[in-house]
Amino acid sequence: MSAITGALLIGSRDVAEGPTFRAVDPARGSEIEPAFVEAGPAHVAEAAALAAQAFPIYRATAPEARAAFLDAVAAEIEAIGDALIERASQETGLPAARLQGERARTTGQLRLFASWIRAGGADEPRLDSPLPERKPLPRADLRLRHIGVGPVAVFGASNFPLAFSVAGGDTASALAAGCPVIVKGHPAHPGTSELVGRAIRAAVAKAGLPEGVFSLLTGTSHELGGALVGDPRIAAVGFTGSRAGGLALVAIAAKRPVPIPVYAEMSSINPVFLLPAALESRAEALGTAFVGSLTMGAGQFCTNPGLVIAIEGEGLDRFLASAGTAMAGAPSATMLTPGIAGAYAKGVTALAGAGATEIARGGAEAGPNACRPALFVAEAGAFLSEAALSHEVFGASSLVIRCRDAAEMLAIARAVEGQLTATLHLDAADHKLAAELVPVLEEKAGRILANGWPTGVEVCHAMVHGGPFPATSDPRSTSVGTLAIRRFLRPVCYQDLPEALLPAAVKDGNPLRLPRLVDGTIVPAPASEDGK
Amino acid sequence: MSAITGALLIGSRDVAEGPTFRAVDPARGSEIEPAFVEAGPAHVAEAAALAAQAFPIYRATAPEARAAFLDAVAAEIEAIGDALIERASQETGLPAARLQGERARTTGQLRLFASWIRAGGADEPRLDSPLPERKPLPRADLRLRHIGVGPVAVFGASNFPLAFSVAGGDTASALAAGCPVIVKGHPAHPGTSELVGRAIRAAVAKAGLPEGVFSLLTGTSHELGGALVGDPRIAAVGFTGSRAGGLALVAIAAKRPVPIPVYAEMSSINPVFLLPAALESRAEALGTAFVGSLTMGAGQFCTNPGLVIAIEGEGLDRFLASAGTAMAGAPSATMLTPGIAGAYAKGVTALAGAGATEIARGGAEAGPNACRPALFVAEAGAFLSEAALSHEVFGASSLVIRCRDAAEMLAIARAVEGQLTATLHLDAADHKLAAELVPVLEEKAGRILANGWPTGVEVCHAMVHGGPFPATSDPRSTSVGTLAIRRFLRPVCYQDLPEALLPAAVKDGNPLRLPRLVDGTIVPAPASEDGK
Repeated sequence: MSAITGALLIGSRDVAEGPTFRAVDPARGSEIEPAFVEAGPAHVAEAAALAAQAFPIYRATAPEARAAFLDAVAAEIEAIGDALIERASQETGLPAARLQGERARTTGQLRLFASWIRAGGADEPRLDSPLPERKPLPRADLRLRHIGVGPVAVFGASNFPLAFSVAGGDTASALAAGCPVIVKGHPAHPGTSELVGRAIRAAVAKAGLPEGVFSLLTGTSHELGGALVGDPRIAAVGFTGSRAGGLALVAIAAKRPVPIPVYAEMSSINPVFLLPAALESRAEALGTAFVGSLTMGAGQFCTNPGLVIAIEGEGLDRFLASAGTAMAGAPSATMLTPGIAGAYAKGVTALAGAGATEIARGGAEAGPNACRPALFVAEAGAFLSEAALSHEVFGASSLVIRCRDAAEMLAIARAVEGQLTATLHLDAADHKLAAELVPVLEEKAGRILANGWPTGVEVCHAMVHGGPFPATSDPRSTSVGTLAIRRFLRPVCYQDLPEALLPAAVKDGNPLRLPRLVDGTIVPAPASEDGK
Repeated sequence: MSAITGALLIGSRDVAEGPTFRAVDPARGSEIEPAFVEAGPAHVAEAAALAAQAFPIYRATAPEARAAFLDAVAAEIEAIGDALIERASQETGLPAARLQGERARTTGQLRLFASWIRAGGADEPRLDSPLPERKPLPRADLRLRHIGVGPVAVFGASNFPLAFSVAGGDTASALAAGCPVIVKGHPAHPGTSELVGRAIRAAVAKAGLPEGVFSLLTGTSHELGGALVGDPRIAAVGFTGSRAGGLALVAIAAKRPVPIPVYAEMSSINPVFLLPAALESRAEALGTAFVGSLTMGAGQFCTNPGLVIAIEGEGLDRFLASAGTAMAGAPSATMLTPGIAGAYAKGVTALAGAGATEIARGGAEAGPNACRPALFVAEAGAFLSEAALSHEVFGASSLVIRCRDAAEMLAIARAVEGQLTATLHLDAADHKLAAELVPVLEEKAGRILANGWPTGVEVCHAMVHGGPFPATSDPRSTSVGTLAIRRFLRPVCYQDLPEALLPAAVKDGNPLRLPRLVDGTIVPAPASEDGK
């Protein structure tokens, strides 16, 4: 059983000396033992040097070896057992059942990525045959595969202490791509981070990989993150957090002598459009389900429905009445950190100050860092003229926009900033309006969903958890699902290289049994000789 | 037959009023008629507004419609006939045969991209089936396709007036991705640009596409490029040119309120490693072929072999003697512009000043803007300690590095900056050393080639014309080949959308007959009903 020691994990070395900080139990407002070492720039330099040493060895591993390593990370995380759930719950205020589900998602993600790279999803080989007789010039033998970009810095998020933290989506996709990872652990859950970090380290050691494949640096300073993004050995950055935090890292990366990509997932209010026929037919059920989605986990999801758009009328009145009733019965819930609870309270106050009308609040605050759910309403015209009404309030707060007509609903769709998600509630009679909204929303959001709620992000091949700015700093990708691996890859072409020098992914005979694009046609993976 | 009028092409509108400039015939050092309008920020705003209007319509076209449009652009370029070659030759000093080949590459590229998007290469659809019975939670119906990022700004390069200019690789890949294009035409070949721009415009009109799909703004000011990259309607930038120019655009893009990607292909000296056995067996032939590659087109290629690395000894002495003889017989050739000719002369002087020893020059300068080929040699130790020796000299200048041993050759490989290409000349006896070099070079270059020369970039599926900084600003992509289209795409996910609202690429029954990734397995494109 792993113990929580408070050490930094730099490759295989524990760093137990230095200034320290402690985690806070947000439900009690009290500090938790033990003390954790504050990582600083010297630790960054040490971890980055190890990562740079490890990169050529790690990236050269066969897909099967990397896949087995990802599977092993999943098994090591499961082997921590209940201690992980208990510590995570204490550090975040999230209930055990939620964290058990999040753990399953985290290990499932590692195993899905393992299966995907076994199937060639990282290499994506392409071969173009030589044409020695072509006129006026022959064509050479050209073969392409993808390799990792280099060591990746991953910033753990506070709101998913497992699935978007030390062994979360960014770490899993970078490791799958063949990139060593240095995690900047979120200081809100350092014990959880250490437990998971030790699990990854154990998998590194058992796989015989270089120690620099993984390091965990936890700390509270901005200096730490800046040193990590600025280190010349870091080739890319994955981040999930606030808009201000993400933009700060993007700015640091842009100022480097060698600029690097930052995949920052930042800010989204996830508009939900209630179309007229759907609203008419099931306003009450929508109101109840909406508040359920909004208040789940104290609303601390990147995909929380923070904006609802509907056309005024009797249907909307019924929706608001239903949502208001549900909201009044919604309990307060402990937020992740005192800072987040404070920002939530400020955000709710700012919405009111910007002209939104409060129509319901949840149960009175319970405990030192509780989120009291809040529901506001504003007219479409006010929303279109007051930017403050579209600011994200992280937590269980939402704003219902009352439109006069469909044209105003479309105007809202066109006016919102980039989003992770956009949702339509619709019936068959709404298809005409929906067909006007979908093309607008495609340019605004990474995922468009119908008759559901945006919270809950499936880890699969077709998921997009991304979207135009400010939802992310780079809309060309996703941070969830197997497509996320592409973020940390780059293509390399081999021209006329002797067979002996070619990497296995593009060798004659396809020894890795990967699907390959040959002369523009996909050739599926061949069956293995023993029929597997 | 299109005439050259000197107008800007803003959608379907000719702008013939305003301050003007003229092209220069570099072989004569004299100006050419007619005068061309200088584009400025107001023209950028007009073209960007048209592009933004065109984007939703253009990106919604089916792959077949976009492919037919690309094919039509190729046909319209061919229809210009000899007038295009004559004007391009006059504006660039490049011979007609070279320009005919470049035209074939340009039209072939458009047609290859057309075939690739017909085959689903832009959409890349992915479907994950719903799992309604899954516990603890059902899985939704999830479908993903890629769409264009938005209007793209393309900066034409001086050195490929057709293949990297108005209808070059960046334009072709952006149009293939479904993005309108605004070309900032290079002022060195404004007449060539206008002819090609009118060809694209004709194809836009014949296809019934919105006029804003294409605009051409030519001008000489930095202000023009800055306004284009800074325009809020521009979603991505493609650039081929100098390191200073590329970095300036990257900096402008990073400072926008909404940052956008800049794909700048900038600076590369394309190291060529002559391995011992190959050098021993064919030093003379390598020397001759090297000078042929170096001096072709006055050395004005991004992939020009500007650095040669070999181990000292009798083989290298023979190589240098052979190269020196070939160099002495190499004629001068007219460079693209007076600016480039001036920079070449300065660069050659700087190499000598940085400690390189001149060992041969080509024929004396002929004409006002001629490039006199130059060959230098330096010791490996000097190269490793003097950064100026690794600066790109655009033109027919190269530096041979003399290493004491294989270890020093490996040290050079590790020390060079990011490159477009790295070349090995090797025999079977060199494989052991090559096997050490290849992994180092994979982290340095986008393309590794054996027993050839890096000039000549095949347009195909497996090509990578890209590489780590400063070869490009973004090593995750290529600017040549079908993979280039991905630069201008972003994924969108559809969750539980009714069939009627789904885009065709992800509809049930696969009406577009595209290969699709279904539950993690590639399902090839189905044959059409008539067996095609």
